[in-house]
Amino acid sequence: MPHTTLQLISRIQDSGLLELRFIEQTLPPLGPDDVCVEVQATPINPSDIGLLFGAADLSTLRNTGTAENPILIADVPPQAMPGMTGRLGQSLPVGNEGAGKVIDAGSSPAAQALLGCTVAMVGGGMYARHRVLPHQQCLLLPQGTSAADGASCFINPLTALGMVETMRLEGHKALVHTAAASNLGQMLNRICQKDGVELVNIVRQPAQADLLRSIGARHVCDSSSPTFEQDLTESLAQTGATLAFDATGGGTLAARILACMENAIQRGAKEYSRYGSNTHKQVYLYGNLNLAPTEIKRSFGMAWGVGGWLLFPFLNRMGAQRTEALKQRVASELHTTFASRYSRRISLHEVLDTAMVANYTERSTLNKYLIEPQ
Amino acid sequence: MPHTTLQLISRIQDSGLLELRFIEQTLPPLGPDDVCVEVQATPINPSDIGLLFGAADLSTLRNTGTAENPILIADVPPQAMPGMTGRLGQSLPVGNEGAGKVIDAGSSPAAQALLGCTVAMVGGGMYARHRVLPHQQCLLLPQGTSAADGASCFINPLTALGMVETMRLEGHKALVHTAAASNLGQMLNRICQKDGVELVNIVRQPAQADLLRSIGARHVCDSSSPTFEQDLTESLAQTGATLAFDATGGGTLAARILACMENAIQRGAKEYSRYGSNTHKQVYLYGNLNLAPTEIKRSFGMAWGVGGWLLFPFLNRMGAQRTEALKQRVASELHTTFASRYSRRISLHEVLDTAMVANYTERSTLNKYLIEPQ
Repeated sequence: MPHTTLQLISRIQDSGLLELRFIEQTLPPLGPDDVCVEVQATPINPSDIGLLFGAADLSTLRNTGTAENPILIADVPPQAMPGMTGRLGQSLPVGNEGAGKVIDAGSSPAAQALLGCTVAMVGGGMYARHRVLPHQQCLLLPQGTSAADGASCFINPLTALGMVETMRLEGHKALVHTAAASNLGQMLNRICQKDGVELVNIVRQPAQADLLRSIGARHVCDSSSPTFEQDLTESLAQTGATLAFDATGGGTLAARILACMENAIQRGAKEYSRYGSNTHKQVYLYGNLNLAPTEIKRSFGMAWGVGGWLLFPFLNRMGAQRTEALKQRVASELHTTFASRYSRRISLHEVLDTAMVANYTERSTLNKYLIEPQ
Repeated sequence: MPHTTLQLISRIQDSGLLELRFIEQTLPPLGPDDVCVEVQATPINPSDIGLLFGAADLSTLRNTGTAENPILIADVPPQAMPGMTGRLGQSLPVGNEGAGKVIDAGSSPAAQALLGCTVAMVGGGMYARHRVLPHQQCLLLPQGTSAADGASCFINPLTALGMVETMRLEGHKALVHTAAASNLGQMLNRICQKDGVELVNIVRQPAQADLLRSIGARHVCDSSSPTFEQDLTESLAQTGATLAFDATGGGTLAARILACMENAIQRGAKEYSRYGSNTHKQVYLYGNLNLAPTEIKRSFGMAWGVGGWLLFPFLNRMGAQRTEALKQRVASELHTTFASRYSRRISLHEVLDTAMVANYTERSTLNKYLIEPQ
């Protein structure tokens, strides 16, 4: 096990300057439950882009280091600084999840058992050559699985499974998902098909609708269509979906989904209530693709909720045992239900290449990058 | 028991014309559990005004009947008609709650026990001379209580108690209330003082703040003050309130409350999380004083929710036993905690007096009318 490792950190100064650079970080000594992993593959998820760049204006991005030792800087607009208060001055290690080979392990039998194995990891700081972490944050990958295949084991698979679990836990019988053609959205379709859960997919373009239908999606509604709200109401009436997960966050989409849900419910209503139906309709916002405020025109009665949804608090709510069962399911269906595809593989240094930044921060359905730090 | 009764009904035609009139309604025969009540007092609550006038434009209100037999009509603007779909063509009886004397009763012992007694009632259609309803929807008022004193036994008292119960049920430790100088808001202050619950009151005018302080409120924040958000954050930090009930519904207030809650929580935070604190912050919208869309600028992390809150679904959620206990508490504290004050008492016919309509629909803190139908 080496003494130090190369680690990518992000820092915003009080002045509003964002700085991204590599630092030579001393690796901590191994506790009994810790393992040291050589990071071989780590994806760039939207959540990583959020931590990397914060609220910085990417049009101001420039390299003030060298090709060998790049230091990217960018400006955070003054009006966006209040949202950054909590992280000012801190050097934050980046990279939510990854996979690699366990090259050293603490004294506990559970840690020792992983020595030499390929594991998936979660816990931040993965944009590095090595990572020391407790074995509980690792998932042993099935024999013969490459680090690349296991690198996205946690965030997308557990988020998609978490949506279905939330549906069950909160008593809904079908799901709605927006930005549904994403990597995560396709995974959710595979889970729902396997588990017999009805899923209404909302996309923004005909090509995305075609893609989802080609993988077997039955309900796909294109928000660019003039008949979007009728189509959505029809799908909601057929499926009985009263829970939606929305990746866009801002704008009117969440409220429009609630209104269509209520209209679908009212089709079967016998009696007028000026408070609307008593059926609870819920939209969870789990992403921020649209940074505008969420605008809710209240036209769907009183039995509704909109709120934030985040993976790790949800896993806490479910408890360790149920979470472990979900992780085991991910491991056993890694090459089918939970397979991830990457549009490009890059080195750790290329993360700080300004041209590359423009590529991997582009928000498009099939744009997913994998970092290979070794 | 009479054969018929005078009943105020509200109807919106497909053309968009609202019509309010009295009809001579045949009273149904009494089932074993039913009682017939002579309605002596029934309040005009905001929820009654909603059912009476729907989305009609009150500036178009006119009387097409006579002084003896008034028929008020008004126009619903075309853009508001979609929200009225569910009630089109229906003659809806108005009046959520009231009180009066039981003049006839069905054969069951529980119904018979109420004969001759003064009871409070809930269940709609109270703007009438008589009302037949199951005894379960009545509350026997303590000996010597007048119908006027018991007329507002249900909606405001149970709504205020429901807020405190929701706080307990959902694990919050203090409350925020908007439009806090209202009849309901003052009642909530008396409950919270009695129960030792910390309450942050939000009002819109200095005079309302003075009124609340005069009845012992400790935390009062005036949204017209330039230091409103600092004041609110300070009160939230002192009380630890993470649950708000908002009567306004529209605009930015709900989101500003959530942002101040998060700021209050972050004062004690040790570590940065770009997803905000893990403390769940909730705002329930239980009214619609501001008809504008709810605008949520998401600047308070991911642990938040906004949703509708309605009394009767909440009572269902709590169950019959707990609801009965709350009703008994209302009866026993009717002259103290749950005392209602009325600014004016009017006859049933005066409800359809156009000048009176202008008065009782005015939204002001201390404007509460009582109808005395006999």
